[in-house]
Amino acid sequence: MSDITMIRAAAERLKGHARRTPLLSSPFLDEIAGRRVLVKPECLQHTGSFKYRGGRSAVSALDPEVRARGVIAFSSGNHAQGVALAAREFGVPAVIIMPADAPQMKIDNTRALGAEVVLYDRVGGENREKIGDRLTAERGLTLIRPYDEPQVIAGQGTCGLEIAEQARAEGVERADVLICCGGGGLTSGIALALEAEAPGLRARPCEPEEFDDAARSLAAGRIVSNARASGGICDAIVTPQPGQLTFPIMKRLCGPGLIVSEDEALRAMKLAFERLKLVAEPGGAVALAAALFRRDQIEGDTVICTISGGNVDAPMFIRALQSDGG
Amino acid sequence: MSDITMIRAAAERLKGHARRTPLLSSPFLDEIAGRRVLVKPECLQHTGSFKYRGGRSAVSALDPEVRARGVIAFSSGNHAQGVALAAREFGVPAVIIMPADAPQMKIDNTRALGAEVVLYDRVGGENREKIGDRLTAERGLTLIRPYDEPQVIAGQGTCGLEIAEQARAEGVERADVLICCGGGGLTSGIALALEAEAPGLRARPCEPEEFDDAARSLAAGRIVSNARASGGICDAIVTPQPGQLTFPIMKRLCGPGLIVSEDEALRAMKLAFERLKLVAEPGGAVALAAALFRRDQIEGDTVICTISGGNVDAPMFIRALQSDGG
Repeated sequence: MSDITMIRAAAERLKGHARRTPLLSSPFLDEIAGRRVLVKPECLQHTGSFKYRGGRSAVSALDPEVRARGVIAFSSGNHAQGVALAAREFGVPAVIIMPADAPQMKIDNTRALGAEVVLYDRVGGENREKIGDRLTAERGLTLIRPYDEPQVIAGQGTCGLEIAEQARAEGVERADVLICCGGGGLTSGIALALEAEAPGLRARPCEPEEFDDAARSLAAGRIVSNARASGGICDAIVTPQPGQLTFPIMKRLCGPGLIVSEDEALRAMKLAFERLKLVAEPGGAVALAAALFRRDQIEGDTVICTISGGNVDAPMFIRALQSDGG
Repeated sequence: MSDITMIRAAAERLKGHARRTPLLSSPFLDEIAGRRVLVKPECLQHTGSFKYRGGRSAVSALDPEVRARGVIAFSSGNHAQGVALAAREFGVPAVIIMPADAPQMKIDNTRALGAEVVLYDRVGGENREKIGDRLTAERGLTLIRPYDEPQVIAGQGTCGLEIAEQARAEGVERADVLICCGGGGLTSGIALALEAEAPGLRARPCEPEEFDDAARSLAAGRIVSNARASGGICDAIVTPQPGQLTFPIMKRLCGPGLIVSEDEALRAMKLAFERLKLVAEPGGAVALAAALFRRDQIEGDTVICTISGGNVDAPMFIRALQSDGG
C-alpha cells in the first residue's frame, strides 16, 4: 500500500527529473471565485501532465533486470507519454496500448518519445487486455497501471508534497485542494501527502458530469461505476470507476467530490489562457472550473486547484477560446 | 546608470512580489533547434509579462511622498499593466496613456488593475506627450518610462539573475541568451546581470522584420531608427529605436541581433502551445522563433530564450494555431 514513506522515497527518485511546478494566481480569477485561487499547473510538467511523476516513479522502482525487458501501459494518452518518457530515460523499451480515437497529439507524442504504440478500436469493443496479455507474455514486459499501482500513486503524491510546501510559503493553513480525478491516482497520492504534511488542506476530487464516479462513490461509501466507460471531451480523466487501491485512500481522506459541466471546463480553459497564460486540456481544467464556478460548495478563503494536463489538440483549444463567458 | 548593484537591490525589493519563473524545455523543441533549448517563460510573471519586474522596481524605488501623488506611464499594454499593478500594491494612483488601437485585453486589464486609462489616437497623430505633460503637471505624477529608466532596467535585470542561477543549475556555462527586444530594457538588464553572474552567457536581442532597430543599431555601432514607429502583430516589442540608456549597455555587452518574420513568430506561438503548454503573444515569441529557426546564427549546444509576454487576444492566438508548420 502507498503511504507517505513511499511518496517521500518517490520524491527522492524524481529529484532532478520531475519539474517542481510553481503555484500561480491571478486577481481576475480570485474575483470570479470570490476567494483566493492558487493554481498548481501540472500542464508544465514533462510530457504536459502530472502522469510523468507516476510513470517515472514506477519505472525507477523496478528491479533493473526486470526493467531492462521493458514496460507496457494502457492509456488514452497522458499516462502513455509519462511511461514512454520514463522508459526512454532508462533506455528500456515501452509498449503503449492506446485507443485509436485518442487525441492525435497524444498518439504522436507517445510515438515520438520512442514508444511502440499499438492502437485498438475502443468503440468496436476490441479487447485491449487480450492484446496486452499476449505482448506481455511474449516479451516479459512489466505492466505499469495508470493508477491502481502503489508506486504510481506514490509518484503522483509528490505533487502533494509540493502543494503542502508551497501553500505553507503562501501562508495558507486551511484550504480545499481540488484535484482533477479519473481513476484517483493523483487524488489519492495528494491526499496522502497532505495528511502527513499539511493536515489543514483537504483533497477533493473534481469530475465532469456523467463521469462523476468518484463523487458518487464517496457519497455512497463504496465503489460506484459510470453508465458509460468513455466519451465526452475530458478524455484524460474518464475512467469506469475509482481504483481498488485509490478508493479506500480517498474514502478515508477526501472531502466530497465536485462536478462541473463540459461547458464549464471549456470556460475554465479560456480563463487559464487569458489569466494564467496556460494551456489546459478539458479534463485538466475541471478542478479550476470547480474552483471558479462552485464557490458555494467550497470552504475557506483560499482554494487550491490542479491543472492536471495540457495535451489538447488545436481544434479543441479553439473551441474553448470561442466559448461564451469566462 | 543601471549596474549590477542596482539589479541586486531591485531583486531584494521584488522578493515575495515578482514570481521566480521556471526554466522549461521540451525534447521536441530541442530537435527543431538542433540543440538544447531552455525557455524562460515571463508570460507566467504577474500581469502576463516581464514588465511587472520593472514597474514594481521603479515604483518601489520612489520616495514615499513622491509615490503617494501617483505615477503615469505611456504604454501599448504590458508596461501599462506592470505599472498599474505595482501602483495598486502601494495604494497609489496610476494614470496610463495607451494607444486606442492597443489589444483590447491589455486595455481592459489595465483598467481592471485600477489604473485610469487615457486613450489617444496613435494613427491620427495625437500628441501623447502633450496629454501626459498636462496630467503630470496638474497632479504631480511621476513618469515611469518603459525602458529608458535606470530602476526599470534594474528590475528587468532580475530576470537575468534568475537565468544565471537556473542555467548554472542545469550545468550550462556557455550559451546565447535570446531576448525579445523593444526599447531594450529587458535586453540591457539581462545583459548586465549575466556580465556579473554568468559571463559565459551572451545576451542577444531578437526582433521582428521591419522593427529590427536594435540589430541594425548594434551592427552600425550607433542608434538607428525604424522606418515605421508602429504596426505589425508584435506590438509588445515595437519601438522607434533603442533607448539612450539601454543602447550603450547593449553595445558593450550584447552579441548580434536576430531577426525573424511575423510568420515565424506565429509558428513559435503554436509550438509553445503544443510543446510547453504556454501562451505567448507574437512579440513574446520572437526569441523562441529565433532559437528554433535561426540555428545557423546561434553558437553552442544550448540556447536560452525568453518568452517575454502572453497578453494576446483570442483571435490572434487562433490565427497562430491555424498557421502552417510548427
